Amino acid sequence: MALVNPHGKDKKLMPLMLEGAALEAAKTAAKSMDQVKMSSRETSDLIMMGIGAFTPLTGFMGKADWKSVCEKFVMADGLFFPIPITLSTTKGQANSLKIGQEVALVDEESGEIMGSMTIAEMYDMSEDDKKFECQAVFTTTDAVEHPGAQKVMAQGDVNIAGPVKVFSEGHYPETYKGIYMRPAETRALFEAKGWNTVAAFQTRNPMHRSHEYLAKIAIETLDGCCIHMLLGKLKAGDIPADVRQKAIDTLVDNYFVKDTCVVSGYPMEMRYAGPREALLHALFRQNYGMSHLLVGRDHAGVGDFYGPFDAHHIFDKIPAGALETAPIKIDLSFYCTKCDGMASDKTCPHGKESRLIVSGTKLRKMLSEGEEVPDHFSRPEVLTILRAYYEGLTEKVEIKMHKHAETGGK
Amino acid sequence: MALVNPHGKDKKLMPLMLEGAALEAAKTAAKSMDQVKMSSRETSDLIMMGIGAFTPLTGFMGKADWKSVCEKFVMADGLFFPIPITLSTTKGQANSLKIGQEVALVDEESGEIMGSMTIAEMYDMSEDDKKFECQAVFTTTDAVEHPGAQKVMAQGDVNIAGPVKVFSEGHYPETYKGIYMRPAETRALFEAKGWNTVAAFQTRNPMHRSHEYLAKIAIETLDGCCIHMLLGKLKAGDIPADVRQKAIDTLVDNYFVKDTCVVSGYPMEMRYAGPREALLHALFRQNYGMSHLLVGRDHAGVGDFYGPFDAHHIFDKIPAGALETAPIKIDLSFYCTKCDGMASDKTCPHGKESRLIVSGTKLRKMLSEGEEVPDHFSRPEVLTILRAYYEGLTEKVEIKMHKHAETGGK
Repeated sequence: MALVNPHGKDKKLMPLMLEGAALEAAKTAAKSMDQVKMSSRETSDLIMMGIGAFTPLTGFMGKADWKSVCEKFVMADGLFFPIPITLSTTKGQANSLKIGQEVALVDEESGEIMGSMTIAEMYDMSEDDKKFECQAVFTTTDAVEHPGAQKVMAQGDVNIAGPVKVFSEGHYPETYKGIYMRPAETRALFEAKGWNTVAAFQTRNPMHRSHEYLAKIAIETLDGCCIHMLLGKLKAGDIPADVRQKAIDTLVDNYFVKDTCVVSGYPMEMRYAGPREALLHALFRQNYGMSHLLVGRDHAGVGDFYGPFDAHHIFDKIPAGALETAPIKIDLSFYCTKCDGMASDKTCPHGKESRLIVSGTKLRKMLSEGEEVPDHFSRPEVLTILRAYYEGLTEKVEIKMHKHAETGGK
Repeated sequence: MALVNPHGKDKKLMPLMLEGAALEAAKTAAKSMDQVKMSSRETSDLIMMGIGAFTPLTGFMGKADWKSVCEKFVMADGLFFPIPITLSTTKGQANSLKIGQEVALVDEESGEIMGSMTIAEMYDMSEDDKKFECQAVFTTTDAVEHPGAQKVMAQGDVNIAGPVKVFSEGHYPETYKGIYMRPAETRALFEAKGWNTVAAFQTRNPMHRSHEYLAKIAIETLDGCCIHMLLGKLKAGDIPADVRQKAIDTLVDNYFVKDTCVVSGYPMEMRYAGPREALLHALFRQNYGMSHLLVGRDHAGVGDFYGPFDAHHIFDKIPAGALETAPIKIDLSFYCTKCDGMASDKTCPHGKESRLIVSGTKLRKMLSEGEEVPDHFSRPEVLTILRAYYEGLTEKVEIKMHKHAETGGK
């Protein structure tokens, strides 16, 4: 037994980060290059490539890969990949760039040069092309209500593609010290613990009892669980990463066994691509050495764009062997007084009156207005932290509705 | 997706039961044959072959298979089989039998002719041979304390082997109407429910909360669970099958979901072979269409003959592909007041003071003497049935110590 292999036929991690003298030389050279600005999503994708989380990608995707991934979930060479990883710029800038030219890749928010790319291809992304991508990836072109579609529709009108070199992981290693890990690091951690089978519990929210239950079901049957937090950007209304981390650390300290659970994070930004994102979540977990991905209700969903179990079903539709990392599909879970414990529709035969289900909206109302949260819904230590956060929010109007408790928080 | 394949290279069930005119003719012919008496274990093995649960066996094992199974867990032709399935007789009778002769196989308890065997081979089983088998299968030759070894050491001194025809399933279909099922029947049942992945919860005892927890963990991650009761003979002190069935039916009616759980039984007798028996349990579950076997602490154990997790480890030592049915290995589980629910050593970080563990001995004392059983240990509906049984026992001395609650009851 051993950990799952990294994705791709070579079965080894391919981080694109430069180090040492090569890094210094590349950084110096990049200073005099033309600069292409990256959105926060593009920057997060570049870092994912840098640390080997998107192994075996070598850079942003060209048109053939983009189209094939959208249509068929595979790169032009047949490699399974569920979501296009692309970089865009304006027509104006594209006209000034040449194939074969190496450009500096700059994070538009921090202004930091994050890496460089040798341009292999430039291709127009018309309004129709963007809509095609959105329909394929998000099942909608609704750029108002769908935050992922919104970003694609707002992109520049040209995609530029080619192999990248990565210089920096941005603020992540510093901001999330001890939590932020590269795939090589989680693999070393799991090996040190003697784990072969590891479930990823994907989360972008604090964990309540229902989420704890999912993680613990995995722990009962596998060697361990990695509570794997998304550290990249979220949409408005989601709880900030530092509050979430504190809430999760408290939960783990008080209710998990050290030998079977670790907490870690990765630098990707949410796309809210539902089932396709669940597949991407499984793909990069494979690179992180995690053999299983817990997939709850409406995984990586937003609003009502996906059916509650679309992210379960999609795993049955991909070719056998496309991924080594397998889903653990779990139903909506809750505390049931008659069961005297946690359960789901699959294990609890009792009626609604015995099931404790609190919507995300209601929970936030309770927390921000100092109301009591019903027993068994969440751990008291977690509620204390969330209450402090909500009470500290000055602009309560910012708390927009999102489907936290209903969706499993992912 | 589909159910797991039956064991063996042909991947199809091979029941050895005769039916219709062939059965009638064989029964008539058997009346005039020499009779070989079978112990209850041998009878139960014959029925297992009859219904296809031991597919692809064609009869009782010859010497090469017996030896190879004991030494290497495979038949002489390389087929994985973890426990020898043999029939013995006395030297005296063996001297009166001939190779090629067809004999009637008679259950020594009921006197019923259960089938016939064409003798292909007869081989001596010296005291040393029996000890060799016991050491290999039970890891002990202790014929006093180990009920499985006791039976082997008490066998006749000659094994007779050959292909069998099976005429009868004995009292099982009648005694356990609705519960007793052949592999073809459970497979049809699972298919009708649309299940592909099915966990077997092996049990020879009533189920308390810890057993319910194991079954429900499997249900959360698979399509369904079959609570699969051993209906053959147990050792003294084990709870009779009818009481157990009533207790389990009540549990399932009140705490399980009909769509994800079925109760069924099989006609095998316990050998208490621990890890080897766990492998046999997985093998015949594969024939029954069950993709997974829940393996708790001290599975199929007795006394202190096996390490508590030997039955987990043995699945790592068999060749890949030996079995399709996979173990779900689960630690000792209990109710924990701090966890506010069921947990195990792998998921509960709290101390002994918050964990509710009641030994089998203590539980029986509580039940038979009308004491209160602590909350959360068992479902009240189940306790009511067990209390009635223990109160009805006239000879309390018969309640011997066994490791029920400690072992997961298997």
